[in-house]
Amino acid sequence: MTAATDTYLLLRAFCEELARCGVTDACTSPGSRSTPLVLSLARTPGLRAWSHVDERVAGFFALGLAKRTGRPVAVACTSGTAAAELVPAVIEAAQARVPLIVLTADRPPELRDVGAGQTIDQLKLYGGAAKWFVEVGTHEATPARVRWLRALACRTVWTALDGRPGPVHLNWPLREPLVLDGPLPDEDPCPGRADGRPWVAHPVVPAPDPLPHVPLAPAPRTVVVAGRDERDPALGEAVAAFAAAARYPLLADPLSGARRGPAAVAHYDALLRDERLAAELRPELVLRIGDLPTSKPLRAWLAGLGEAEQVTLDAEGAWHDPDGVVSARIAASPRATLAALMPEHRDGGDPAWLERWRGADRAAAGAIAATLGDELSEPRVAAELVDALPAEATLFTAASMPIRDLETFAAARDGAPRVLSNRGANGIDGTVAAALGATAAGDGPVVLHVGDVALAYDLTALLSARRLGLELTIVLVNNDGGGIFHFLPVAREGADFEQHVATPHGLDFAQAAALFGARHALVADAGALRAELGRALGSGGVTILEVRTDRGANVALHRRVWDAVRAALADA
Amino acid sequence: MTAATDTYLLLRAFCEELARCGVTDACTSPGSRSTPLVLSLARTPGLRAWSHVDERVAGFFALGLAKRTGRPVAVACTSGTAAAELVPAVIEAAQARVPLIVLTADRPPELRDVGAGQTIDQLKLYGGAAKWFVEVGTHEATPARVRWLRALACRTVWTALDGRPGPVHLNWPLREPLVLDGPLPDEDPCPGRADGRPWVAHPVVPAPDPLPHVPLAPAPRTVVVAGRDERDPALGEAVAAFAAAARYPLLADPLSGARRGPAAVAHYDALLRDERLAAELRPELVLRIGDLPTSKPLRAWLAGLGEAEQVTLDAEGAWHDPDGVVSARIAASPRATLAALMPEHRDGGDPAWLERWRGADRAAAGAIAATLGDELSEPRVAAELVDALPAEATLFTAASMPIRDLETFAAARDGAPRVLSNRGANGIDGTVAAALGATAAGDGPVVLHVGDVALAYDLTALLSARRLGLELTIVLVNNDGGGIFHFLPVAREGADFEQHVATPHGLDFAQAAALFGARHALVADAGALRAELGRALGSGGVTILEVRTDRGANVALHRRVWDAVRAALADA
Repeated sequence: MTAATDTYLLLRAFCEELARCGVTDACTSPGSRSTPLVLSLARTPGLRAWSHVDERVAGFFALGLAKRTGRPVAVACTSGTAAAELVPAVIEAAQARVPLIVLTADRPPELRDVGAGQTIDQLKLYGGAAKWFVEVGTHEATPARVRWLRALACRTVWTALDGRPGPVHLNWPLREPLVLDGPLPDEDPCPGRADGRPWVAHPVVPAPDPLPHVPLAPAPRTVVVAGRDERDPALGEAVAAFAAAARYPLLADPLSGARRGPAAVAHYDALLRDERLAAELRPELVLRIGDLPTSKPLRAWLAGLGEAEQVTLDAEGAWHDPDGVVSARIAASPRATLAALMPEHRDGGDPAWLERWRGADRAAAGAIAATLGDELSEPRVAAELVDALPAEATLFTAASMPIRDLETFAAARDGAPRVLSNRGANGIDGTVAAALGATAAGDGPVVLHVGDVALAYDLTALLSARRLGLELTIVLVNNDGGGIFHFLPVAREGADFEQHVATPHGLDFAQAAALFGARHALVADAGALRAELGRALGSGGVTILEVRTDRGANVALHRRVWDAVRAALADA
Repeated sequence: MTAATDTYLLLRAFCEELARCGVTDACTSPGSRSTPLVLSLARTPGLRAWSHVDERVAGFFALGLAKRTGRPVAVACTSGTAAAELVPAVIEAAQARVPLIVLTADRPPELRDVGAGQTIDQLKLYGGAAKWFVEVGTHEATPARVRWLRALACRTVWTALDGRPGPVHLNWPLREPLVLDGPLPDEDPCPGRADGRPWVAHPVVPAPDPLPHVPLAPAPRTVVVAGRDERDPALGEAVAAFAAAARYPLLADPLSGARRGPAAVAHYDALLRDERLAAELRPELVLRIGDLPTSKPLRAWLAGLGEAEQVTLDAEGAWHDPDGVVSARIAASPRATLAALMPEHRDGGDPAWLERWRGADRAAAGAIAATLGDELSEPRVAAELVDALPAEATLFTAASMPIRDLETFAAARDGAPRVLSNRGANGIDGTVAAALGATAAGDGPVVLHVGDVALAYDLTALLSARRLGLELTIVLVNNDGGGIFHFLPVAREGADFEQHVATPHGLDFAQAAALFGARHALVADAGALRAELGRALGSGGVTILEVRTDRGANVALHRRVWDAVRAALADA
């Protein structure tokens, strides 16, 4: 038996177990050392292998796919800086709690740090961002070792999923020869279990036992704050139902899935900029679910609530409290916690107080609509997308200005599209690749809402879209630079600001679309946006719908909106 | 005094000391947290600040600039995955011994791991790839602390340069406000030293004292093997002069700078594929200088030399010995070592044996020229570039197929262009950005010799070329995929090979050039290549000169060349 046969027998069993554990997708990139990994993944029944030229794209594509499906996605790469290219996606996965299985090819120990080509120190390359690291070693394909590989695959999948989901890193030293010189024997030294079961099963964890009494008394002035939790699409609905039943105003950012129902207050970002209202609506109790929302006024308001009880509900007890105001943490499934709280909290809120919030929200909505008018501004794009897209669509939103506009301007509504974003570490790197990964999951169209800098940053991810025949609709807000920075004091810094912070680039996105075989349309009004969305969704290819805006005018418009909301609140 | 004033006073002193220590260039990327770093760098007299949208591009640009100049280049980025985007360039810098100063902005400790935006664990993010890591902390701009910052800047520069050069990482927690609300006071709490001296000077180290006798007896059949050493442009000449005076055949790859002079044997890669010749020309002593060359036949030959003494000459005693055949290491300046060896080794080689090598090399050159003919094949492009470019040009060569073709086909000649390549970790990531960094150094034109996959991978680096108004001439060998993999057994693997390893992409590089404001020309023969090179060099912009080739035909041509060389050797 040659070494290559050993390698491929071991990897065949490993990949088969990945599939048996429910992994459906893997990403690859070109390389030599990774050949056994890549060919084994590509040849595993039940696994789709997505090929990318750039490992950074592969990493974020895997992230987007896993984020949308909740299933771990494998990403294999060759040795050297290829493995380092995955670092940003691995960190984002760790912070956003997305399961990834990173399989890096390496040279065996005797060829490390001795001048052999394309060899770096890959041991624990991802540091604390990896939940688990395994140096796999090289082995003969004895029954015992194939059994170990089967168990290792299962343990990898379950570790990526268990508790706080995240990335797992397996480093594979691979010796030459890297390809077989004949067919791989059909017989397996240690065949998988009968009926296609995984070697080590992981029974579906039953719904948690009803929690015992949670010692958290209702308070009439309670507010529910819900932030990013992309894992459990049903959690948002449960949060909205709880808030409605308890009559607690619900401040839910679009990534919570809870921005819906009669208790939802959509425009809290604008409302809480009004100091009088913010003071008037101080709660006694805050229930915080999921990550903290992005809104600065909301964060500042929460930070200044003084003696109010602030309680976090998080399955893994994540410590989201930059201002040190949380007074209790309930580290259990938020759904189970809400169910346990329900009997005591039902109708616990002060209806007049809730109505004060909702009335203010209606006033804000009116002021926003009047101020935005008919123009297809950046805020309007955000509002239109949430309004126009069907429930089965996924709106992938870039982590900088688009997610903020969505939070500020999108209405609360049932049947809104699911919203996803790379808000673990909030980078703009890999946005296009992550959206492509989400679209590869199938199950409804994906629309990417992105600014020009994030699109320019990750432009070559569109090469993967063309090579893999993926559909993606990109709604591009193009103000030729980083518009978000205009909201900050640094915008006063003149030429240095423009060159080093705003970074205008002058890219012609019609040309960019043509380069990658995408359709491009300039969109000037909301009607055209809806018509073009209708054309793009289901078209099977990439469409870039470009909305041209101006950075300075955009800041001014936002400020006019905030002023109009303040004025409307004063009138009310 | 506000915190912002403290921050900017400290950073002004820090950046001023960088410049006093000889740092001339810094790279920036957009961000908010990094504002004090970026503005301070941009406003330091004597520092040029190069703005990039993508931190990966910024990192490799800094690497290319530092590689060409030997001076440390600063690269500043904002917090979060921005810092992770620098990992590949930092690893390449560590392995290629290139001095870098990485300045990452971070949130202060109280805002880490508590749900504050864009915050990851940046402490020791680059692991063992960073020579030195400092968590800078936050400080009042007292005289003592400004003094410390001045010393820290000096220590950073000297640490990046001392001994084995490499990257240094300073992590900067920065508190809001991040901009000044008025002008920065002119007076400095701790002014720099008079006459523009650095706070801590680092006197130019005198040439090392003559080494004592190096106990290495000459042997008539000695061969000198010289690989990548891009740091000391004069070392190559010294190696060539030593080999000539000693009458030792010199096998020097283009990255050694030593491929010149009467002892040089250019076509060792083709010669050593001939088993008879390889056996006949076994040496008694091998002097290995710099990294091990890329050539597989050369590496295999060295690995099989049995009892021959193999001695490495490396300033930092780098352990380049994948086959465990080195018998002694001289960890001292190779130039000083060669000078110490010279008296005893002068005329130490067997002239007949040297002539046997040189005759074989001439026979190989003839066979290569006859086989390549007039067609502008991939090998011919490599040979033409070394032949056509002037001595003041720099040839930046991609780490995969181009560097191998250069090693195999370029003639040895005096006055050849300097050749640089990312051959620390041999990644193809960042190739365009690194070449752009090299061109930003000024001092002669830069030509990038690159394949289509490496160019597609790093295509958006061309955005920096346009934004910064840089000149770069790109000679693109386009065979629509990773041609290098066709030389490996994996090429037999059919559709899986094509999709996951060769990764054809169909990019139209004329369109790509237009997107980034570059000139593009298809080049079909050697005369046109020379004419277009003449037009491109000094044009002030980016030119893509595209040579279309075929992956299969390219492998066949290489095999015909090797056969022709074998036949020529048999005839001789």
